[in-house]
Amino acid sequence: MSPGVIDYAEGVARWQPDAVGRLQDAAFTLFDEQGFDRTTVAEIAERAGLTKRTFFRYFADKREVLFGGAKVLEELFVTAIAAAPAAAAPLDAMGAALDAVAGMFEERRAGASRRQQIILANPELQERELIKLATLAAAVAGALRDRGVEEPAATLTAEAGVTIFRIAFGRWVEPANRKTLAQLQREALAELRAVAAG
Amino acid sequence: MSPGVIDYAEGVARWQPDAVGRLQDAAFTLFDEQGFDRTTVAEIAERAGLTKRTFFRYFADKREVLFGGAKVLEELFVTAIAAAPAAAAPLDAMGAALDAVAGMFEERRAGASRRQQIILANPELQERELIKLATLAAAVAGALRDRGVEEPAATLTAEAGVTIFRIAFGRWVEPANRKTLAQLQREALAELRAVAAG
Repeated sequence: MSPGVIDYAEGVARWQPDAVGRLQDAAFTLFDEQGFDRTTVAEIAERAGLTKRTFFRYFADKREVLFGGAKVLEELFVTAIAAAPAAAAPLDAMGAALDAVAGMFEERRAGASRRQQIILANPELQERELIKLATLAAAVAGALRDRGVEEPAATLTAEAGVTIFRIAFGRWVEPANRKTLAQLQREALAELRAVAAG
Repeated sequence: MSPGVIDYAEGVARWQPDAVGRLQDAAFTLFDEQGFDRTTVAEIAERAGLTKRTFFRYFADKREVLFGGAKVLEELFVTAIAAAPAAAAPLDAMGAALDAVAGMFEERRAGASRRQQIILANPELQERELIKLATLAAAVAGALRDRGVEEPAATLTAEAGVTIFRIAFGRWVEPANRKTLAQLQREALAELRAVAAG
């Protein structure tokens, strides 16, 4: 993800290849082993072989290790919706955005699955995840309004899209699943169309 | 709402007609005047002319004055979905539930509007409201599964229904609005069908 950083905190400029990846991996392992609440930033840094100072260069706190990607996800959705053909209906623009987002995740199933397990084990993190998704839906609705979609169609489409993402994501990370995230999202989108028509 | 209660806390059994209503009214007034965060339970009780002990007989804390109705709302949705004709399609059962819920709110627009203003003024309360609605959607999805609706149709329908409720509710409490909640919900449901078909 990050190619490597120079850690001035050590006094000497020193390469630390993929500090973010190492910190994430250490954090996920500790959250999984001993729970999110009982894990400290000092432990995460130690497990990663880095300093606390290095940790705080990339993350404001331990929660951000889990939620720091929210902004990237939001931008991906918003950019893809803006890039959809002008003639595309709202739900078609949404479908294109879901495909784009799936492309970003497809190679990262192992990490996504670990993150999901950690969140499902902690009610407070589940609440944070809900708030992240609600914020995402509001941003997506804004991107749809920027395309000329009126309310309440923009919010209805955005909320449906985020629900599709959430449902498909949950199925995608299940151990037995063999489908791609894109496939699962398309199936859920088709299901939504069937429900609305039925 | 409550016909009157006997306050044993006062030492003498004494009627306190509509203690819940008085506490709610006092709380809403104070939240509005000085903000939710700066209002104490002691102030709410004093404004209502009741004791703190009486307050705690009805509410666990000041937040529950705003969110204590969540369980009632959830039961109303779940009961209405269970009561819909067996042959009703998922989104039709959802529509019937939305109508039932609207019936409960229609007479209470002033209180609902005050509550909405208080929540919109406080990010923490907005988060709590999101979590309440997510919990509601999960319960509604469960009620749909109990009717034999499979996943992901159940969750897609439930989330769409709660989004419709949220959108329509926000419009309904706007000062300029002259439509009923039921009308606004039906319009949003029709819009969802159009979005999904379009």
